[in-house]
Amino acid sequence: MPILKIDHIAVVVEELDGALAFWQDALGLTVRALEQNTDEAVNIAFLPVGASQLELIQPTSTDSGVAKYLAKRGSGIHHLCLAVDDIHAALAQLAAHGVELINDTPRTRHDGTQYAFVHPKSTGGVLVELYQYPTPTE
Amino acid sequence: MPILKIDHIAVVVEELDGALAFWQDALGLTVRALEQNTDEAVNIAFLPVGASQLELIQPTSTDSGVAKYLAKRGSGIHHLCLAVDDIHAALAQLAAHGVELINDTPRTRHDGTQYAFVHPKSTGGVLVELYQYPTPTE
Repeated sequence: MPILKIDHIAVVVEELDGALAFWQDALGLTVRALEQNTDEAVNIAFLPVGASQLELIQPTSTDSGVAKYLAKRGSGIHHLCLAVDDIHAALAQLAAHGVELINDTPRTRHDGTQYAFVHPKSTGGVLVELYQYPTPTE
Repeated sequence: MPILKIDHIAVVVEELDGALAFWQDALGLTVRALEQNTDEAVNIAFLPVGASQLELIQPTSTDSGVAKYLAKRGSGIHHLCLAVDDIHAALAQLAAHGVELINDTPRTRHDGTQYAFVHPKSTGGVLVELYQYPTPTE
């Protein structure tokens, strides 16, 4: 079950403009895309860093999981996402080691990427997400 | 001032063995090196992930900065390190944007790597480290 790379680091922020003043204007990263996700009530900015990405996440409601995290812990790193080649095998291997999963089976994003979260109680406090990109079709 | 990649994600842990039970045994990452750093009173495990690394940091005293962080916040992600091609230029650019630096000038590791930390109050709560690798000598 190879781990391919750090796919992204997600940072929860009070508001994107203020966060971009540091990450984009001062540090020099480039915004690749902005996404308004009404289902999850977040606005996200994606900034590539080498083969990985920084994702800045701004809650747009007060009752989402991310909004509650922000209210409780303040802005900062929210989760670490690792790209794997086989997410089903990865989840089975973790479960066999007694690791608690938030998502026992992968969920699928609109672009076909499968993802699942591992509970921080099993990782030493780090919210870990696993990603498997869709296989290119011919 | 190109940002080259995420160099590493540092996770502060209660003790390395327990952390490796997840990251190594369950998830399948490989430990590249173990380091006992008596100057900073930490033991560190380095686990490559693609072009980046996961660094697990266990404090070995109770009075270091990392130990106090662990006591206050519990185990979890401690900092994000970005590799840059010119750390002096990076720090000058950040300072010009009013970013507060923990290290105004780079410090140097035993292997010649230069590093400096950016204060989380200027980044939205993320402790950011910058790394510049030594230029290979002929």
